[in-house]
Amino acid sequence: MYIWVTDCQSSRKGYIHIMTQTNRNHWVEGASADASIREQLIAAAGEHFCSYGYERTTLADLAKAIGFSKTYFYRFFRSKQEIGEAVCEQVLGTILQAIDEELTKAPSAPEKLRRMLRTIPRMGTELFFEERKLHDVAATSAAEQWASSTNYCNKLAEILRSILQQGRDEGDFERKTPLDEVTRAILTSMRLFIDPRALQFHLDFVPDGSNEVIALILRSLAP
Amino acid sequence: MYIWVTDCQSSRKGYIHIMTQTNRNHWVEGASADASIREQLIAAAGEHFCSYGYERTTLADLAKAIGFSKTYFYRFFRSKQEIGEAVCEQVLGTILQAIDEELTKAPSAPEKLRRMLRTIPRMGTELFFEERKLHDVAATSAAEQWASSTNYCNKLAEILRSILQQGRDEGDFERKTPLDEVTRAILTSMRLFIDPRALQFHLDFVPDGSNEVIALILRSLAP
Repeated sequence: MYIWVTDCQSSRKGYIHIMTQTNRNHWVEGASADASIREQLIAAAGEHFCSYGYERTTLADLAKAIGFSKTYFYRFFRSKQEIGEAVCEQVLGTILQAIDEELTKAPSAPEKLRRMLRTIPRMGTELFFEERKLHDVAATSAAEQWASSTNYCNKLAEILRSILQQGRDEGDFERKTPLDEVTRAILTSMRLFIDPRALQFHLDFVPDGSNEVIALILRSLAP
Repeated sequence: MYIWVTDCQSSRKGYIHIMTQTNRNHWVEGASADASIREQLIAAAGEHFCSYGYERTTLADLAKAIGFSKTYFYRFFRSKQEIGEAVCEQVLGTILQAIDEELTKAPSAPEKLRRMLRTIPRMGTELFFEERKLHDVAATSAAEQWASSTNYCNKLAEILRSILQQGRDEGDFERKTPLDEVTRAILTSMRLFIDPRALQFHLDFVPDGSNEVIALILRSLAP
């Protein structure tokens, strides 16, 4: 990927090659492309964290690897955490998007629930440990309760709550237990697969172990 | 606690003071007390790991802190791991003993299950993180799949299986799902609280979060 830069500090001006996950070639020109540059920097930072880890990378390392000065970097991100947050938000957004896609394929609440819960360990394993190895930025996000991590958990709870409500309305799920309690209990029993810090020690539980927990959760919802 | 030692390497002979968890005074004399000395060394090693951590302690540090030569130590333990295993076995044995005590108080299978599962996060939090801080030896045991850790998990599965069988026989639990699957699924959904490596990040989920998971598990067993 090539992006147009005007780097005030180094007076560097021109097209800079940035590796991205998809490695498509794309040209963006002028200052109006700030949002696009920011997005591409996030992708490039994500690639860098994949190879070198988030914790061990400084903002200076990152700027150097991508070919920007640190000063230019500050135009888009105020700190390493800010770009870490953005990378994390993007990767967690990918999981949420995959869940959304799965939900459209399922008409009933039990099937939606199964698909949602199966997506979490599958995508978490892929994105954090296999395909992208973004484990340490996600772990830092969870440990330091960054907004990216908190928003993701809140979003999962929101989706889950809405599936549970649909299941209750359609007579598929029991209604005696308070909805909020059921939502929390399901997320806690799946937390081994949601939290990358716990998942890292339990990768061999995916998918058989996680599928058995999901089946247990579905049995617990029987009316 | 005082124990009688004959230390061949240093020609040291006499009574040595060893701190133990209970700090009782106790005198043991002669070579016939080997089993008792071993037990006391385990207690003293446990105390040392509590203060200094397992990973950072060498067998030489440990021997020095307790007042033995390394050579004398080797009479009882072949390696640091062997004493680590013994400390771990003792601490996990304390949890199993507490579960046994809880089970005698409960007549029905659902109540036995509730008491068993509530004991795990409560005792794990106390022993690994609060009262004794033996987290790192337990984490190493889990990571390296020491016999102490594997035996503990097998023993939990055995107790759980027997409670589930009682509940099935007495009509309290459903019988459609294979017993082995239910046993595994319950242990996996509780693994956040069983495995000290996962528990360390989720101490604030005890007891409310763990109790909600236990209630979900009990709902999943309804006939």
